[in-house]
Amino acid sequence: MVRKGVASGDWFFERVEGTGTAFGLETERCVHSEQTRYQRIDIYQTRTFGYLMVIDGCTMVSTRDNFLYHEMMAHPVLNAHAAPRNVVIIGGGDCGTLNEVLKHPEVEKAVQVEIDERVTRLSERFFPELCERNGDSRAALIFGDGIQWMKEASGSTVDIVIIDSTDPVGPAQGLFGVEFYEECRRVLRPDGLLVHQSESPLLHLELIAAMQGCMKRSGFFRTHLLNFPQPIYPSGWWSASIAQKSTDSLIERLDQAAIAALKTRFYSAEIHRACFALPPFVADALA
Amino acid sequence: MVRKGVASGDWFFERVEGTGTAFGLETERCVHSEQTRYQRIDIYQTRTFGYLMVIDGCTMVSTRDNFLYHEMMAHPVLNAHAAPRNVVIIGGGDCGTLNEVLKHPEVEKAVQVEIDERVTRLSERFFPELCERNGDSRAALIFGDGIQWMKEASGSTVDIVIIDSTDPVGPAQGLFGVEFYEECRRVLRPDGLLVHQSESPLLHLELIAAMQGCMKRSGFFRTHLLNFPQPIYPSGWWSASIAQKSTDSLIERLDQAAIAALKTRFYSAEIHRACFALPPFVADALA
Repeated sequence: MVRKGVASGDWFFERVEGTGTAFGLETERCVHSEQTRYQRIDIYQTRTFGYLMVIDGCTMVSTRDNFLYHEMMAHPVLNAHAAPRNVVIIGGGDCGTLNEVLKHPEVEKAVQVEIDERVTRLSERFFPELCERNGDSRAALIFGDGIQWMKEASGSTVDIVIIDSTDPVGPAQGLFGVEFYEECRRVLRPDGLLVHQSESPLLHLELIAAMQGCMKRSGFFRTHLLNFPQPIYPSGWWSASIAQKSTDSLIERLDQAAIAALKTRFYSAEIHRACFALPPFVADALA
Repeated sequence: MVRKGVASGDWFFERVEGTGTAFGLETERCVHSEQTRYQRIDIYQTRTFGYLMVIDGCTMVSTRDNFLYHEMMAHPVLNAHAAPRNVVIIGGGDCGTLNEVLKHPEVEKAVQVEIDERVTRLSERFFPELCERNGDSRAALIFGDGIQWMKEASGSTVDIVIIDSTDPVGPAQGLFGVEFYEECRRVLRPDGLLVHQSESPLLHLELIAAMQGCMKRSGFFRTHLLNFPQPIYPSGWWSASIAQKSTDSLIERLDQAAIAALKTRFYSAEIHRACFALPPFVADALA
């Protein structure tokens, strides 16, 4: 899959070549562009979605709709674990997922390992609301290679690994596959959970099946798909895959007062249950 | 809201001007274009979504993803009613909703009132799979004005009214509002339900609130929102609003064998429950 963004007149268009679909946002101007050591980052001021960060031509984050993705990468997996104290985020340099994770008082430590420091510095400037908790004493922001970090981490020390990566091309490619998942599994405690963003249920069903296959081959006992809307991503419909190490059923830690304290806009106990409902065509493909 | 479609090179782009968003599909060619008495209809052969029908520049139906919309316009409302025998569809000329309604053996009569016969004739040609049940002895295809039809219909005769309309501009404008909803309410039996497609929860929340307000002002006791993915519609996230005449709770008629017999690709008992889960930001706006 290759996603190619072009700025055309007053619009930014992303053509997701492999899928024959495109998405566009009306822009007022491009406010920042740079080629970092790893990738090209462009930031646009849009007319109706606030700021838009684009990496290598792929839409990454907009002010208006990022709450959907960030809430759903953090809260379902955390509330599917009995006591998530130690959380590691691989990627996620805009800090939006970290921000949601740190809303949980039961989290004692949240480490974010982002390869490209420029993503975080630009997020601090254009998406400060996502970086509000970067100074939290429980947060550790590491800029380095997530694959290397995971190799060097001690076994059975982490409760939740969140892989908040870009698409499986470019710098993120190594994060999709048996070898990296095996390292994650080793680092997780026996009741640990892994979650990885897994693209569109309509457009990338084969990729989702392949990812979940890799998770199982790397020793995880069971996988779960959750799905949610994400308008700026291809098809507007997105997913994440959870892999569990233990043979127990997933927990539903859905205390209403605790969830209300998260001050979420999309996530709720009802949405937690709803996001795991699989349409028959998806369930068949993953069976 | 104005949606403007343009064919550019090998892509069809729809710019939803009021929202600052656009959606595009890669096309192989335009296979049909005509100006009917009511609207302009274009049909494209796309590279990955099959055929695409565009009305007045707005994406309406694609071969690949229409099952999401059509299943969700038919099955949740039918399975929220104890015994839906008499169903009326206003609009829906592509016959996809009618096709889903007729999958229910308990339906004794399904009337489709479409203003533009050309939509149906073109659907028969390019989307024959949506028209498979048009010859069913329980189906009646009427080509005429849905507003007029509803005015002339006898009171308390219909179990379900499905308003499968285009956006609230052009020929469909009169279908959004108190006057038409009052007629629907009159025509419904005491336990009758109305459902109307109600646009995007992210982009059109004020419109949804206004529609549900009109439903209540026209005498319906309570409204419900259901949401689902629909990639070719603005934001890729769509909704429908159900209005109930009676003061009873909605029924959940979710017999597994009956649902399996529908041979759906998206809808299931799990999805039925999931689609009514409201994100907090939506619930707040509709409160």
